[in-house]
Amino acid sequence: MKLGVCYYPEHWPKQRWVEDAQHMQRIGIEYVRIGEFSWSTIEPKSGELHWEWLDECLDVLHAHGLKVILGTPTATPPKWLVDRHPSMLATDEQGRVRGFGSRRHYTFSSLEYREECHRIVTIMAERYGQHPAVVSWQTDNEYGCHDTILSYGETDLTAFRLWLSDKYGTVDALNKAWGNVFWSMDYRSFDEIELPNLTVTEANPSHRLDFQRCCSDQVVAFNKLQVDILRQYSAGRDLVHNYMGFFTAFDHHKVGQDLDVASWDTYPLGFLDQESIYRNEEKQTYLRVGHPDFGAFHHDLYRGCGKGRLWIMEQQPGPVNWAPHNPTPADGAVRLWTWEAFSHGAEMVSYFRWRQAPFGQEQMHAGLLRPDAKEAEAAQEAVQVAKEINMLSAAMEMDKDELMSLPSSGKVALMFDYDACWSLDIQPQSRAYRYLFWCYRIYEAMRELGLSVDIISSHASLDMYELLVLPAQAHISSDLENRLHAYKGILLAGPRTGSKTDSYQIPENLAPGPLSTLLPLKVERVDALPEHTQPAVSGRWGKGNLKHWHEQISTELPCLLKDDSGNPVLMGSERHFYLGSCLDNDLLKTSLAKLAEKAELPTYYLPDGIRVRERGDVIFVFNYGVRSISFEPEGAELVVGNKNITTAGVAIWKKLKDQRKHIKK
Amino acid sequence: MKLGVCYYPEHWPKQRWVEDAQHMQRIGIEYVRIGEFSWSTIEPKSGELHWEWLDECLDVLHAHGLKVILGTPTATPPKWLVDRHPSMLATDEQGRVRGFGSRRHYTFSSLEYREECHRIVTIMAERYGQHPAVVSWQTDNEYGCHDTILSYGETDLTAFRLWLSDKYGTVDALNKAWGNVFWSMDYRSFDEIELPNLTVTEANPSHRLDFQRCCSDQVVAFNKLQVDILRQYSAGRDLVHNYMGFFTAFDHHKVGQDLDVASWDTYPLGFLDQESIYRNEEKQTYLRVGHPDFGAFHHDLYRGCGKGRLWIMEQQPGPVNWAPHNPTPADGAVRLWTWEAFSHGAEMVSYFRWRQAPFGQEQMHAGLLRPDAKEAEAAQEAVQVAKEINMLSAAMEMDKDELMSLPSSGKVALMFDYDACWSLDIQPQSRAYRYLFWCYRIYEAMRELGLSVDIISSHASLDMYELLVLPAQAHISSDLENRLHAYKGILLAGPRTGSKTDSYQIPENLAPGPLSTLLPLKVERVDALPEHTQPAVSGRWGKGNLKHWHEQISTELPCLLKDDSGNPVLMGSERHFYLGSCLDNDLLKTSLAKLAEKAELPTYYLPDGIRVRERGDVIFVFNYGVRSISFEPEGAELVVGNKNITTAGVAIWKKLKDQRKHIKK
Amino acid sequence: MKLGVCYYPEHWPKQRWVEDAQHMQRIGIEYVRIGEFSWSTIEPKSGELHWEWLDECLDVLHAHGLKVILGTPTATPPKWLVDRHPSMLATDEQGRVRGFGSRRHYTFSSLEYREECHRIVTIMAERYGQHPAVVSWQTDNEYGCHDTILSYGETDLTAFRLWLSDKYGTVDALNKAWGNVFWSMDYRSFDEIELPNLTVTEANPSHRLDFQRCCSDQVVAFNKLQVDILRQYSAGRDLVHNYMGFFTAFDHHKVGQDLDVASWDTYPLGFLDQESIYRNEEKQTYLRVGHPDFGAFHHDLYRGCGKGRLWIMEQQPGPVNWAPHNPTPADGAVRLWTWEAFSHGAEMVSYFRWRQAPFGQEQMHAGLLRPDAKEAEAAQEAVQVAKEINMLSAAMEMDKDELMSLPSSGKVALMFDYDACWSLDIQPQSRAYRYLFWCYRIYEAMRELGLSVDIISSHASLDMYELLVLPAQAHISSDLENRLHAYKGILLAGPRTGSKTDSYQIPENLAPGPLSTLLPLKVERVDALPEHTQPAVSGRWGKGNLKHWHEQISTELPCLLKDDSGNPVLMGSERHFYLGSCLDNDLLKTSLAKLAEKAELPTYYLPDGIRVRERGDVIFVFNYGVRSISFEPEGAELVVGNKNITTAGVAIWKKLKDQRKHIKK
Repeated sequence: MKLGVCYYPEHWPKQRWVEDAQHMQRIGIEYVRIGEFSWSTIEPKSGELHWEWLDECLDVLHAHGLKVILGTPTATPPKWLVDRHPSMLATDEQGRVRGFGSRRHYTFSSLEYREECHRIVTIMAERYGQHPAVVSWQTDNEYGCHDTILSYGETDLTAFRLWLSDKYGTVDALNKAWGNVFWSMDYRSFDEIELPNLTVTEANPSHRLDFQRCCSDQVVAFNKLQVDILRQYSAGRDLVHNYMGFFTAFDHHKVGQDLDVASWDTYPLGFLDQESIYRNEEKQTYLRVGHPDFGAFHHDLYRGCGKGRLWIMEQQPGPVNWAPHNPTPADGAVRLWTWEAFSHGAEMVSYFRWRQAPFGQEQMHAGLLRPDAKEAEAAQEAVQVAKEINMLSAAMEMDKDELMSLPSSGKVALMFDYDACWSLDIQPQSRAYRYLFWCYRIYEAMRELGLSVDIISSHASLDMYELLVLPAQAHISSDLENRLHAYKGILLAGPRTGSKTDSYQIPENLAPGPLSTLLPLKVERVDALPEHTQPAVSGRWGKGNLKHWHEQISTELPCLLKDDSGNPVLMGSERHFYLGSCLDNDLLKTSLAKLAEKAELPTYYLPDGIRVRERGDVIFVFNYGVRSISFEPEGAELVVGNKNITTAGVAIWKKLKDQRKHIKK
Repeated sequence: MKLGVCYYPEHWPKQRWVEDAQHMQRIGIEYVRIGEFSWSTIEPKSGELHWEWLDECLDVLHAHGLKVILGTPTATPPKWLVDRHPSMLATDEQGRVRGFGSRRHYTFSSLEYREECHRIVTIMAERYGQHPAVVSWQTDNEYGCHDTILSYGETDLTAFRLWLSDKYGTVDALNKAWGNVFWSMDYRSFDEIELPNLTVTEANPSHRLDFQRCCSDQVVAFNKLQVDILRQYSAGRDLVHNYMGFFTAFDHHKVGQDLDVASWDTYPLGFLDQESIYRNEEKQTYLRVGHPDFGAFHHDLYRGCGKGRLWIMEQQPGPVNWAPHNPTPADGAVRLWTWEAFSHGAEMVSYFRWRQAPFGQEQMHAGLLRPDAKEAEAAQEAVQVAKEINMLSAAMEMDKDELMSLPSSGKVALMFDYDACWSLDIQPQSRAYRYLFWCYRIYEAMRELGLSVDIISSHASLDMYELLVLPAQAHISSDLENRLHAYKGILLAGPRTGSKTDSYQIPENLAPGPLSTLLPLKVERVDALPEHTQPAVSGRWGKGNLKHWHEQISTELPCLLKDDSGNPVLMGSERHFYLGSCLDNDLLKTSLAKLAEKAELPTYYLPDGIRVRERGDVIFVFNYGVRSISFEPEGAELVVGNKNITTAGVAIWKKLKDQRKHIKK
Repeated sequence: MKLGVCYYPEHWPKQRWVEDAQHMQRIGIEYVRIGEFSWSTIEPKSGELHWEWLDECLDVLHAHGLKVILGTPTATPPKWLVDRHPSMLATDEQGRVRGFGSRRHYTFSSLEYREECHRIVTIMAERYGQHPAVVSWQTDNEYGCHDTILSYGETDLTAFRLWLSDKYGTVDALNKAWGNVFWSMDYRSFDEIELPNLTVTEANPSHRLDFQRCCSDQVVAFNKLQVDILRQYSAGRDLVHNYMGFFTAFDHHKVGQDLDVASWDTYPLGFLDQESIYRNEEKQTYLRVGHPDFGAFHHDLYRGCGKGRLWIMEQQPGPVNWAPHNPTPADGAVRLWTWEAFSHGAEMVSYFRWRQAPFGQEQMHAGLLRPDAKEAEAAQEAVQVAKEINMLSAAMEMDKDELMSLPSSGKVALMFDYDACWSLDIQPQSRAYRYLFWCYRIYEAMRELGLSVDIISSHASLDMYELLVLPAQAHISSDLENRLHAYKGILLAGPRTGSKTDSYQIPENLAPGPLSTLLPLKVERVDALPEHTQPAVSGRWGKGNLKHWHEQISTELPCLLKDDSGNPVLMGSERHFYLGSCLDNDLLKTSLAKLAEKAELPTYYLPDGIRVRERGDVIFVFNYGVRSISFEPEGAELVVGNKNITTAGVAIWKKLKDQRKHIKK
C-alpha cells in the first residue's frame, strides 16, 4: 500500500521542483504521475522537441526516491497539430465539430491522429523507456471524458462501415441481423449505411448497438497502439490507464486486457452531486463524504478490469471545480477514501493534484497544496494514512510491498457487462430503468449485508464464487451459457437476462433465451413502470415493492415472491434463481441475504452508513453516516482507529489467528 | 362492427402466411392492413420490382375471406431512393437535415419525392386496384409522426414563397396583412421572404401562421396526389389515412375532404404517459386503462374529419415501446377500448400488430401474438369482442354491416378548428394555455355529464345541434358568422373567440370581432395567468375558480358568473352565451349543465371513471375507474356485460322500444 | 419630473397623428420617442430615402409642444440591407446564423454593418440634428436584447483576434496570462486562437472572460460611432440609450461614459414572471405589482451608469406579451412604478407604447391606448401622475424642471461591476451562486432597512458615502485599491472579493488578494453549497444561516459571526469588514443594520411590502404588499396620497424645514 500524487512540473518554475520533491517525501508520497497534459511543452512547434525540462524533472524526482508514472500526452494535442489535421476533431451527435480550446479534442477513429500519437509515443518511449525513475506508463488520460467516445463525423463513418464489413461480410447478413426489413431500412451495400444520429426518429437499436461497439473498439485499438510501442521500449513497466466513475461508453474489460493494472479517478463528492442515480436525501446526507458505495463499487469493478490489480490514479483531496456544487469534504474523508480503496485491493492511491493551479479550467480544484504552496487540509490526512500504513505493516508483519499484494477477492460475484449496459439502455422501456443503476443498487444491498463482492466481466472464470449475480445479462453467449451450466454455486439472474440475441433481437424462445434450460421459465410480457407505481410483492422470502421493470412469467419453478396478481417475481430452487422485477432496496437486501445463506456466506445488517470490507486477514470498518457508531467485528483486534467511529472515521482490524473465515454478526 | 389487424407478411417466411390467415379467422378478424412499410421489399433496387410476394400474400388472405386495406409504402422510401434525391429529406427547426435510418424521412414539399410517390403508387394501383381482396387503400402512414409536418429546408422555402405569392398576389399585400412595418420587416419581393426559424427572437406571428398553413397544405396536396391515382385505378374502394392522437400540425379536416373514411391510431396508455395535458394524479389513476376521454375525444374528432365515417386503424393491444414508460393494460382494457370506439361510430377496429416483431425499433411493442407466435393476452379479448358483436347483432336484429352503419351523431357539437389551434398556440400569452387542452377539458366536462358530443369543423353544418360550443374560435370567417347567425340552438363561445383576423391581427373592434353583433360585448384587456393564481369566480350559475386566461369585458349582457372585482366571466341570455375565462373542471361542468338544460338536453353526473355513450338505440357504459360500480341506465335492457361493472368493464344496453330519446338520470 | 410616451407614427395613417398629439397633450405627456424601428419606412430600398413622413410627423409633434427623442433605426435593418451584407448576421453559440425576421439581426463586430449605420445615422443627424422638436437622440434600441452581445461567427473571430493582439502585444504574453500551459492550450500566434464555443469541455475561463470583454467593447465602439456623428450634427441634445432589466452582458458603465443620460425599460411584471432570481412565493405575492426592489435596483444602477441622470424610456403600462405569463397590473401599479422611478432620480418617465399595435410580435402588449384607440387603464393613471406632479411642484415651490433636477444620491453605495459579474458567473463553483442575484439581495436588505442606496461602478468616487458595500469585487485594480485605502467610511467586502487577478488567475497571496492589507485575512478554502444545505451561523451580530458560498478563512480580525465549526463568517473592526459567505436575507439585513449603525445612518425595519425613498426633501412611500398599511414618516407633511396606503399605493411627503437629515424610525 503506497501513496502517490499527480504533479505538473510544467506549471511551475523549475527552481521549485526540488522543494516539491522534498515535500512529497516528507508527506510519505512514493509515486508521482506526470506528463499527461504536456504535449505543447514537449513540442511547442511541429518537430521542435523540448525534452530538457522533462529530463531534469525526472532526475530530480529520481534523486528523491520517487517512482514516476509517465503519461503519454495524447489527451491534449497542441493547436498546431490540430490545425494540420482538422479531420481528427470529433463531431457531436448534432453534427457540430468539437473544437480546440480545452482537451480530448480528437476522435478515436482518426488514422491521421493515430499516426501523430504513434510518433510522439515512440519518441517518448525511446527516450524514457529505460529511465530508472519510470516504473509505469499511463496511456492518454480518462478515455471518454466529456462524452468523447461516440463521434459522428466522416472519419467515424468510414471506420464504422469498415467495422461492419469486417463483422458481417455481406450486407445481406447485416440486413438480416438488424431486421432491416422493418421500415424498409435494407441496404444494398455497406457504403449506404450511415451513422445512427439525426434520424427522424430513433434508429434501429441493432444499428445503434453496433455503432457503440464499433466506437468502443476504436478505443481499444487506440490504446493498443500505444501499448505496443511502450511494451517494445519499456518492457517490465506497468502499463495503466485511468478510468472514470459511472462511465460505461466503452468496454473497460477489453481495454484492460491490454494493460497491466487498472486505475481510476475517484471523486466521491463531485459524483454524488452530479449523478441522477442518487436521491435527494442521499445527496444531502452524504454531502461531505460521498455515497458509501460509490468508491467501493468502482474499486471492485475496475479491479476486475485490471485482472486483479488496482490503482487509484486520482483521489479527490478537497473541493473540486466541475460539479454543479462543490462542497468541502468532511474532516477525515480523504483518509476514509484512501483506506476504502486499499481495502478493495488498491496497491497505490495517488492524490490529484499536488498543488492547486492558479490558472486554467481547474483553478478551483483543490490539491494537497494550496496555490500559495502551503499545505491544504488533505496533506495532513495523507500524512496520517502514511503513518497508519506503517502501523498496519507492523501489525501484519508485512512490508508495504507485501501489503500491496494482499488478496482482495470475495466469494460473491456480480457480473457487469458493458455490452449488456449498452443494449438495455438503448431501449430502457421504462425511463426509470438504467442498467448501471440497477447493478449499483444490487451491489449496495450486498455491501449493506457485509459481503465482499467481486465485479466480474462476462468472460471471467466463475469457479471461485459461492454466489453469482447476473443483474441483467442481456445477451448470453454460448461460452457464458456453458460456464453457467458448469457453475457450482448459487446463481441469481435478474430481469432482462437473456432477453436479447447478440444482434439485438428477441430470442426465438423469448427471454431468458439460452438460459431457459437452467432457468425453466418464459418471460411472456413486460410491464415497464413509472416511478409513481410500485406494485406490492410478497411471498416466503419477504414483502415489499417492485419498481420500474416487472416481467410476467410462466414457470413451474417454486415462487419465493409474487406480485398481487400471483405472478412469480422471484423464483427458483436449489442453486438457480430468477428475479423478474427490480425490487425496492429493502426487499432486494432481504432476498440477497437468503441467497447468501444458501451459499453459506455469513451476512449481517450493518448500521446506516457503516460499511465493512475484508482484504486478506484485515478487516476495514468505515463510517459514512452522520452519527458516531461503536462497531466491533468479532474475532479480530484493533490495529488502527477506534471502536467508536465518528463520521468519516476508519477502523482497521486484524483477524485473530484462529479466525480463518468471515466475521459473524 | 368488424375487427381487423395490421399485418407484416414481409417480416415472416411465406410458409407462415396460411397459418396466420387461419388464425386470424379463428379470432374473428375480417380486415387486414398490409404493405405500408414494404417499399424496400417491393423495390429493393431502383426499378427492380418484386410483386410476387405481395401477389401471393393477397391471394392467401383472399382465400381465407380476409379483406385487405393496402397501404401505399411512401412513409418509408428505401435508402437508394433517398440517395438519388437528397433534397427530399426534411430539415429540422435548427437547420439540421433529418437523415435516413428510421422512417418518414421526407419533406412533403419535395416535388422530386412526389414524383417517386406518383410512380410507385401508380404501379401499385394498376396492379392491385381491382384485386378482389383489396377493399380499401391507406395513403402513406401517420402523416406528421415524429414531428414531420414543419420542415425548414431549401425545398420548403421555395414552396413557401410560391404559396405566399399565390395567396397574396403582391408583396405589398403581404406586408400589409402581416403588419411588417412593425420592426421594419417589410419585404420588397417574395424572394426575400425566409422561413420563420432561426430568427433572433420570435418571427412575426402572421409569418408563422402562414408557414403552418402552407405546410399543412403540402400534406393535403401530397395526399391528394395519391388519392387521384387510387380513384383512377381502384374506384369504389374506401380511401383512408390513419391519423394520430393529440396531433394538430396539419388540417385533418382538409385532408379528410379527399378521403372516404377517417381512421386513427389509438394508444391510450402511451398517450397517458407522455402527454403534458394529464396531471400526475390522472397518470397514476388511469395507468392501465388510459384517460376516460382520450379515445372518445379522438373518435368524435376524427369521425368529424371522416365526414361521419370512422375506423380505428391501429388499436393498442398490450404494452407499447415508445412512451417514456410502457405498462401493461388492465385485463379487459383492450376490449374496453374496442367497444368505446364502436360506441362512437367506428365501423371497424384493427389491432396493431398481428405478431410482435423480434427485431427493429418496435420489438418491445406487443401484438395479438407474441414473437414466438403464441397468443398474447389481447387475442382472447379480441375473441370476446367478436362474440359480443354477435350477441349485439342478435339483440338488435341487425347483421354486422348494419351495426357498422348505426348512427352515432349527438345533439351537442364542439367546434375544433386547426387554424384556431395554430393561431392561439403561436402566442399563448400564458404558458399554461393550450387550445387543444382547453377543448379537451370542455369535452371531458360534457362527457362527464353523459352528453354524446360531435366534434365538428368550422365549415360543418350546425343545423342538427341543440347546443354548440366554440371553445376558442380565434378567427370567425364571414361564412361562419352567417351560419352562427342562422343557428337556432344554444351557443357558447369561449375565451379568445373572434380575437384574431384571418391575417393574425386584432380585429378593429377588438374581440369577439365579427361576433360582436351576436354577442354584444368587448374584450378590453387580457389577464394571462400562471398556474399558481386562480382567481375566484361566483354568480347565479355557481362558484369556483378561473385559470390561465381571464378577459376583462365590458357588456350589457346579463352576468351569470363574475370574478372578485365584479367583472363578467360568463354572460349571455336566451340563446347566446360567452365565457371570458378558462374555468376549473367542476365549474365548467356546472356551467355546461346549465346550458344543456337550456337546450333541453338531459344530463346527469356520472360516477368517477364511468362514461356513457349512445349510438342509435344502443347504450354503452364503460368503467375507467379503479372501483367496481353498479350502473343501470333507465328504460333499457342489458345485452352484453353486467350491471356491476369492474375496472375496464363494459356493459351494453339496448333501449326499450318506448324510449326513443335519451336516458334520464 | 415629466411624462413621455413611445410612439410609432409609421404604424398609423398620418390623418391620425394630430389627434394622437392632442390626446398626448391632454394626458400630460411632454416627451415622445419615435423612429427607432422605422428603417424600412425611411429607406424601403437601398438609397431610396423617404423623409417626408418623418418631417411631417416631427412638425405635428412640435406644433403640439411635444419634445421628441429620436431613435436611430439601427436595431432593425431592412431585409435588402441584410441581403447585401450577409456577414453582418450574428452566429449563436451553437454555430447557427441568426437570421432576418424579427429584430437585432446583426453582430456588433460587423464593420460592414457599422458602415451602413454610419451612413444612415449621418443622413438622419444632418437632417434632424437641429430640428426644434428634437431634444434628444436614442442610439439603437436595447443593446443585447434577445441575447445578442455574444456572437460566434467569422466576423467576431476576426475582431477577437485583433482585440487580443491589441491587448497582449505578443502571443506569449497571452499564453502566460491565460495559463495556457494547462492542458497544452498554448498558441503560437493570435491567428491560432478561436472563439470559446463548441469546445469539448469548457474553454479556459481567461479565454471566456476576454471574449466577453471583447464583445462588450464592440458594443461600446458601435455606440460611440453613432454618438460621434450625433455630437457633430446635433450638439446640445441629450444622447441616451435604453438599457434593460437584469441584463449584464456588456459594460453599461462604459457605454454610459459616451452618453448624457441613462435610460432603461421597466417591466416589473414581465421580469417577476420570467426571472429565476425570484422564489415562487415572491412570484405569487407580487404577481400584479412586481417585486418591491426590481424597479428601485435598476433605477439606482442605471442612474450610476448615467453619471447621475436617469430616464425611464419604456414603462410597462399594462399586460405585456413576452413573459411566460402576462397578468394585468393591479389598479394603481402604473402610477406606483412611475413615482418609484421619480423617487430614484428619474427626470422623465415614458410609457411604452402609445397605442397597442394590432399586428406583429407585440400585438398583445398593452399601450396607453387600446388597438381601437380608446384609452386603456394606464392612461388615467398617467393623468393622475401628471396632476400629482403639479401638486408636488406647488408644495415644493419648484417648477417641473426644478423637480427634474432634485438630488437623488444617498449615503450608501453598493459597487456593481460588470467585469466581476462575468468573472464570477463563468465559474460559479456552486450553481446556486450568481453575482447579480447576490448584489440584488444585498440591495433588497438595505432597502428593507429604509436606506437610499447608490449603485456605483468600480471607477466611481467614494468620497460622499458613509457606507460602502463591495458584494463580490472579483478583481481589485490598483486604482480601486488606492481609493479603498483612502476611503473614510464603513466598508464591507463580500465573499469572492479580490479572488481573481485581471487575467482570471488566483492571486499569489490568495483572496482577498490586494485587499489583504486593508482586510488582514486569507481565504484558505471554499465550500460551494447546493440549496439544500445551509449551515448555521451565529455570533455577536445575530444568528441565521449561510448559503451557496462559504469561505474558510484564517484571520486575526474580530469575529462577528461564525459557522458551527467556529470559522469566521463575518469579521472586522473599526471601518473595515469582510463577509465570507452569502447569508440568508434576515441575517443579511441584521448585519447591514449594524454596519449602518456604525456609519451613523438611521435605519428602520419597514413593514412587509413597504418601501421608502428620499429625493432631496421629498419622501416617497410605496406599498407593494397585499395589505393596506398606515405608515407615516416623522417630521414630514403629506403632499400626495394618504397615510393609509393600499396595495400599489403611493404617498409623498415633504420634509419639514427643521428636518435636514433622514427620517427616524
